[in-house]
Amino acid sequence: MKRQKKHVRVYLACTVRGDRGGVEAGRAICRLLQDHGHEVLTTHLLADDVNEAESRLTVEDVYRRDVEWLSGYDVLVAEASGSSDGVGFEVGYVLGRAGVSGQQVVLVYDAARHHAISRLITGNCDRSCTTFGYTSIQELTSFIDQHFKPDIGL
Amino acid sequence: MKRQKKHVRVYLACTVRGDRGGVEAGRAICRLLQDHGHEVLTTHLLADDVNEAESRLTVEDVYRRDVEWLSGYDVLVAEASGSSDGVGFEVGYVLGRAGVSGQQVVLVYDAARHHAISRLITGNCDRSCTTFGYTSIQELTSFIDQHFKPDIGL
Repeated sequence: MKRQKKHVRVYLACTVRGDRGGVEAGRAICRLLQDHGHEVLTTHLLADDVNEAESRLTVEDVYRRDVEWLSGYDVLVAEASGSSDGVGFEVGYVLGRAGVSGQQVVLVYDAARHHAISRLITGNCDRSCTTFGYTSIQELTSFIDQHFKPDIGL
Repeated sequence: MKRQKKHVRVYLACTVRGDRGGVEAGRAICRLLQDHGHEVLTTHLLADDVNEAESRLTVEDVYRRDVEWLSGYDVLVAEASGSSDGVGFEVGYVLGRAGVSGQQVVLVYDAARHHAISRLITGNCDRSCTTFGYTSIQELTSFIDQHFKPDIGL
């Protein structure tokens, strides 16, 4: 992953309708990113009532909003342990455009679940993507800390 | 969806490691596409032993192969009922590049499962994507037949 020393705008993705097991990991990532001064604008995805809240919009409005957001961020951080079609879409959409947009993806997943997660996630070796299977929340936060501490680099 | 009267190369996607409930739908789609003279090169995804077969490759090799294939097809037909991160990735990757590549996506899912499927699938209103929630295999095959019958158009 390209390293840089500035604060970045982060689209933090985790599953909404699928297995929400990764949400705790998402919350830990969010706190760290904010502690380091980065901007996380998708914090609503971490709320317990996110599925109900999103139901106030049409599905098409959610699609248009999310795709607009995906185009405006510097980095997509995706917690993919939930084998979610939504998170998969977000990762694919950003990587499909990364050659033009210059956006980056940080893709993390619970290594204990690797047999249930698509090879397009666990095997993601795109030049614009850093993929990491974590074995504990502590290992995950250490990884995020290394990558997003502004003085060390993104 | 842009209509055209030629035979096309189709990447047919369905879940490998997730819920395989959509595979029967995938097989029905495959037969119809081949009957209409289109080329379907991902028929291995429909085999019962696909997960074991894919295990003979590294996950990185599967990633590189699939991304190369995704770039070379005219149309991605994705059966997304299995809420799979892999199918989500494939749809996102093609749509992320569609403005440049001119590729199209046909995205189908079992309407009875719409509450379990991401809004980025059910709400997908991208100009390069035709999205259809089917209520029966008969309705699905009728939809595919209409869209891919060469004399009527894609």
